[in-house]
Amino acid sequence: MATLTCTASDLAPLLATATTALNATALSEFLCRRFNTISTKFSDTTYAIDNTYLLFSAYLVFAMQLGFAMLCAGSVRAKNTMNIMLTNVLDAAAGALSYYLFGFAFAFGAPSNAFIGRHFFGLRDFPSVSGGDYSFFLYQWAFAIAAAGITSGSIAERTQFVAYLIYSSFLTGFVYPVVSHWFWSADGWASPTRHDNLLFGSGSIDFAGSGVVHMVGGIAGLWGAVIEGPRIGRFDRTGRSVALRGHSASLVVLGTFLLWFGWYGFNPGSFLTILKSYGDGGTYYGQWSAIGRTAVTTTLAGCTAALTTLFSKRLLVGHWNVLDVCNGLLGGFAAITSGCSVVEPWAAIVCGFVAAWVLIGCNKVAEKLKYDDPLEAAQLHGGCGAWGLIFTGLFATEKYVNEVYSGRSGRPYGLFMGGGGRLLAAQIVQILVVAGWVSATMGPLFYGLHKLKLLRISSEDETQGMDMTRHGGFAYVYHDEDDPSIKPEFMMRRVEPVNDASPA
Amino acid sequence: MATLTCTASDLAPLLATATTALNATALSEFLCRRFNTISTKFSDTTYAIDNTYLLFSAYLVFAMQLGFAMLCAGSVRAKNTMNIMLTNVLDAAAGALSYYLFGFAFAFGAPSNAFIGRHFFGLRDFPSVSGGDYSFFLYQWAFAIAAAGITSGSIAERTQFVAYLIYSSFLTGFVYPVVSHWFWSADGWASPTRHDNLLFGSGSIDFAGSGVVHMVGGIAGLWGAVIEGPRIGRFDRTGRSVALRGHSASLVVLGTFLLWFGWYGFNPGSFLTILKSYGDGGTYYGQWSAIGRTAVTTTLAGCTAALTTLFSKRLLVGHWNVLDVCNGLLGGFAAITSGCSVVEPWAAIVCGFVAAWVLIGCNKVAEKLKYDDPLEAAQLHGGCGAWGLIFTGLFATEKYVNEVYSGRSGRPYGLFMGGGGRLLAAQIVQILVVAGWVSATMGPLFYGLHKLKLLRISSEDETQGMDMTRHGGFAYVYHDEDDPSIKPEFMMRRVEPVNDASPA
Amino acid sequence: MATLTCTASDLAPLLATATTALNATALSEFLCRRFNTISTKFSDTTYAIDNTYLLFSAYLVFAMQLGFAMLCAGSVRAKNTMNIMLTNVLDAAAGALSYYLFGFAFAFGAPSNAFIGRHFFGLRDFPSVSGGDYSFFLYQWAFAIAAAGITSGSIAERTQFVAYLIYSSFLTGFVYPVVSHWFWSADGWASPTRHDNLLFGSGSIDFAGSGVVHMVGGIAGLWGAVIEGPRIGRFDRTGRSVALRGHSASLVVLGTFLLWFGWYGFNPGSFLTILKSYGDGGTYYGQWSAIGRTAVTTTLAGCTAALTTLFSKRLLVGHWNVLDVCNGLLGGFAAITSGCSVVEPWAAIVCGFVAAWVLIGCNKVAEKLKYDDPLEAAQLHGGCGAWGLIFTGLFATEKYVNEVYSGRSGRPYGLFMGGGGRLLAAQIVQILVVAGWVSATMGPLFYGLHKLKLLRISSEDETQGMDMTRHGGFAYVYHDEDDPSIKPEFMMRRVEPVNDASPA
Repeated sequence: MATLTCTASDLAPLLATATTALNATALSEFLCRRFNTISTKFSDTTYAIDNTYLLFSAYLVFAMQLGFAMLCAGSVRAKNTMNIMLTNVLDAAAGALSYYLFGFAFAFGAPSNAFIGRHFFGLRDFPSVSGGDYSFFLYQWAFAIAAAGITSGSIAERTQFVAYLIYSSFLTGFVYPVVSHWFWSADGWASPTRHDNLLFGSGSIDFAGSGVVHMVGGIAGLWGAVIEGPRIGRFDRTGRSVALRGHSASLVVLGTFLLWFGWYGFNPGSFLTILKSYGDGGTYYGQWSAIGRTAVTTTLAGCTAALTTLFSKRLLVGHWNVLDVCNGLLGGFAAITSGCSVVEPWAAIVCGFVAAWVLIGCNKVAEKLKYDDPLEAAQLHGGCGAWGLIFTGLFATEKYVNEVYSGRSGRPYGLFMGGGGRLLAAQIVQILVVAGWVSATMGPLFYGLHKLKLLRISSEDETQGMDMTRHGGFAYVYHDEDDPSIKPEFMMRRVEPVNDASPA
Repeated sequence: MATLTCTASDLAPLLATATTALNATALSEFLCRRFNTISTKFSDTTYAIDNTYLLFSAYLVFAMQLGFAMLCAGSVRAKNTMNIMLTNVLDAAAGALSYYLFGFAFAFGAPSNAFIGRHFFGLRDFPSVSGGDYSFFLYQWAFAIAAAGITSGSIAERTQFVAYLIYSSFLTGFVYPVVSHWFWSADGWASPTRHDNLLFGSGSIDFAGSGVVHMVGGIAGLWGAVIEGPRIGRFDRTGRSVALRGHSASLVVLGTFLLWFGWYGFNPGSFLTILKSYGDGGTYYGQWSAIGRTAVTTTLAGCTAALTTLFSKRLLVGHWNVLDVCNGLLGGFAAITSGCSVVEPWAAIVCGFVAAWVLIGCNKVAEKLKYDDPLEAAQLHGGCGAWGLIFTGLFATEKYVNEVYSGRSGRPYGLFMGGGGRLLAAQIVQILVVAGWVSATMGPLFYGLHKLKLLRISSEDETQGMDMTRHGGFAYVYHDEDDPSIKPEFMMRRVEPVNDASPA
Repeated sequence: MATLTCTASDLAPLLATATTALNATALSEFLCRRFNTISTKFSDTTYAIDNTYLLFSAYLVFAMQLGFAMLCAGSVRAKNTMNIMLTNVLDAAAGALSYYLFGFAFAFGAPSNAFIGRHFFGLRDFPSVSGGDYSFFLYQWAFAIAAAGITSGSIAERTQFVAYLIYSSFLTGFVYPVVSHWFWSADGWASPTRHDNLLFGSGSIDFAGSGVVHMVGGIAGLWGAVIEGPRIGRFDRTGRSVALRGHSASLVVLGTFLLWFGWYGFNPGSFLTILKSYGDGGTYYGQWSAIGRTAVTTTLAGCTAALTTLFSKRLLVGHWNVLDVCNGLLGGFAAITSGCSVVEPWAAIVCGFVAAWVLIGCNKVAEKLKYDDPLEAAQLHGGCGAWGLIFTGLFATEKYVNEVYSGRSGRPYGLFMGGGGRLLAAQIVQILVVAGWVSATMGPLFYGLHKLKLLRISSEDETQGMDMTRHGGFAYVYHDEDDPSIKPEFMMRRVEPVNDASPA
């Protein structure tokens, strides 16, 4: 790289000396070389900062997979722990290969058509200035695996492992990438970043994926759970709902907090870059502020939903339940994910408050319909995700919409903020289209697996637990055979002969 | 944004052509436009870097809340796990709302008076160039919720949930913000960043909050635990101390490591910005170095305290105890938090060594006085926090104090480093004032709750465990009713009829 | 810092006024002052970005220690949980002191000789422009403690705590630093960054430490485990292998995911800086891209190894085992760690596929030879680490090798990529030398401890579990003595008197 510094003794002779006049050519080159070097350095600096921001955001989103694994593990019975954790590991692992081979290409393989992408299969000709860098691929992969994780919660504790492998590959490799192409790629038919022909002059705003990720995962789970039916014992002979409690509240809380932690990569990270001024630059306010605000709206929505759930459940059920609070919190996050970047912090509180009631309502309906979803995934990600899309159509502000989706003046914004109904219309279209697309693809898949007897496990497996019958053993061995120091086991052994003797 | 690059053919004609002389006005504009653009770009770049740094630091500090949750859960008996984890989730959730509505305004609502802030309620007129950006709010929120988390440890396993909701809101929304205003805002009466009238010409140096966060949480906990009295069974009839062991050492270690991880956001993150040169700039040494050094002093203090505790406890008690080592480690962290940025690495080793003994000493005193604190929170955060403030007054170096608290020459520094006693005096004032303020606010609150019979749970609740009586059930269900593969339960059921039969 | 902005009215008079000609000296100073200021600001900016990148990478690597702790805890029997977690905490704590005092000096104390470093003991005269900043120290410390963590897995459940303290200090303070000096410091005899006399004109490429970290830890563990012999009951009287199952699959999965998360600091972080252009700069492709690619190759290798293990084990053993999948995943990561920065993503898939089989093969051999390694650490980190070094010698591409190890043209690269055999030869030398050095140092140490009867615990301790006999108690207390709400215990107590009565 050319040098940037100089000393007056280098430069002065170019301007004028005792014997010569100003050397216009040499001076021009001297100055322009420096300005061009400076420009290059700013370009490099920007890439370095933006990639740093995006990479660490991607790592946070990846941490959500750990959060899912722990949340799911804690929410199922101990006898199926190994099974559900394996599905969570495989979401990430199988998802990496399928997203590398074709999923990313379907989603972001521009230039393409409005329906599906078609470049970068196996990361060929990647990275490129228009297609993004590896950090973008990594970030999108971490998103892709989240959708399949949601679905595995809905069908937990009763699904054959083979069925899991099939639906998970199909969802991560095709169903989800197509949806993300529609709403997030510059070519997608409903994308707010299209160059022209925006849906209702707006495109739908699903900033970090209330619809693209959460509804997709939730509705896929809905179909799986409906077709499989409830777990044995979930509703008793009289049809009354029986709670099949998860085996560890500690794992649930651990998983919830990890998801919260990772959501700071999910929502604020969806800006993809941080070094971007709004307007002329040089002021304290820029994309970095919008990113911080997004972290704040995310926090407030989740927290409000958690508190609303706490008090509602206290009134409705009579105790203070941490598991319900965790689900309420996650419902608030799923809802704000669509509009997090374009609403005011106070609006995020409204979003969270309603999300809590949406979840409570969906759970009531689910119970009525004898729908069994061990993680409430369809209710939480499907229901609150749909509410989130509507919320954005109501509360998106003019200023933020135009800053975040810049380059086009006079965009529609939230109905309640005076922006008319066009954005809301686009949001409703997204809800319908996502629900339709996922139903049309995942519904038949689950039904086919069901007909081929590949979907649901046998009732023996279900009673025993899949860990014992399919995964090599129970997940926990707290008391060791040869360990006389642990009383319960020890006493058991002493007890037994006596029992045998007493009937005699 | 104006263009920055140029070519010689653009510039040369401005300098001189065959027919015209140098065009001074056009050339000046040409050059200055570029220099101004460069200046603007540096400003944007700095905001982007500093916000990236602060946001990810805030996320790490938030992760400490997960660490607290796991540490607390593992340290209580299994029957109160749901209860304590709920308080940890609510610290974050309720704290977000109260800090958004008024806590942040009380703490950092400048311009204000020396006692309390008064702007930015509900983040109104925020962000602003002087008030900070959203990342700053998020970072301070993550700090605010830590204090309440500390307190919940002291009063664990015997406090009514309603009392928890009341004291936690009061602490996070008022008591803590006022303290942080005093010592951290530019208007605070004891702040080292005041423009004039510094306390003892120095202000007290509590860089990341040994006093502001840890002592506040610890002393609040002290009053709660003293007024409630010890848990049933904590001291036997002869007054001998009986360990009521926590139910999971794995959760304790998990929580401790997560706190360690998050402390790298807590201490080094308290610089708030990273792109700042010390002196003229252009050298490898700048605020980024001070930040790295802060991470190193933090690490060394905690590690030294852990090792000191390991060997001390081996000598005193006779075994190598990981739980004690974890507490020692956290004590070292709590102590170095005040001076982490202004001391040499070797001094951090001294800090940690003494902190371990402070904790051992405080625990001895607590046992003598029949004070029961399930997480040793008052001892650890109160005792080691106070030591940390004194340590800073002894070991802060001249160079680092003037770099970190720049803009005023000749600041007092550590007594042992030749800096006189003024900084130490300010530190001691901080200890007394924090202890007094928290006692004067939280003491009466806890006493009032006690008198209103809202503080301590019934002895039935305490014996049964709050999870069963108040929170919807036991946190763990390892063995399933309908699972015949797990021997213990299975054998139990076979045993029972026999028992019924044998008296007959 | 000098001002950067200007206005035309400042500058124009320097160029020419109505009465004066161009002032060459003043103008030169005016311009050069600005260019020099810009240069300084770029320097500061670069330090800020690179340190931000390195510090957060270091925090991620540190999080691996938590991952190790959870993985180890879950993989041992419940009765030794406290023991193994204590060793993991102490790896970090004792490692911090020894690495601060001398380990870092041995590794990176330049200028030095080819064998061992000799500056910066106790961080004296640190930081410096040539020696690195505190962030570099922190990053290297986080690496150093990983090696000892690996070894503790191999000798788990049967090693005296005193032996642990001795070997761990020796490994972290001397054996490992020397190896890292050889391969990573600019003075090391086999380093690819030496100025001259490169081994085979290449130096060996062990980018993030398949050999330096993983083989060192694995081979140290191998010697420890061989000298101690297998745990009681690991092989039955007929010599058949008996699985001694770890006590918690949830902890294993938690630990594995945390290691995965931290590996994004380990591999991509090993670039140390992110703001570096390849070539002239100003394009989207630079070190930030190479860093992203490294994250992708790491992901793909681990994921491929996980899937390969899943299906192989299904075929070989008959069930879908999450614990095997976790180990396979980690084997893939250990293997790609050497070449992650210099291979194409597709090659990473090859790397992971072979790594899975290397691990399966090593485990078969270990079983044949009655070698007992509770965490398969020697097989996984030793075996897959060695494969990783060979893999780099086969698949490193010309372009990436020259970008990542720049400043010298025409470097040798992978044999299969047409780069000849010199890099492969260097890699094989590294394998032999690392194996030899660790065997020559750690072998005698373990043997000496064995002869002094300081290595293996008594069979009573082993049967009872070390937690009970040495560490203050069992790690878990799920059922409380005074808690009548938990049926099993309660029923036990009711049962007992009956038993006593029935023989009468």
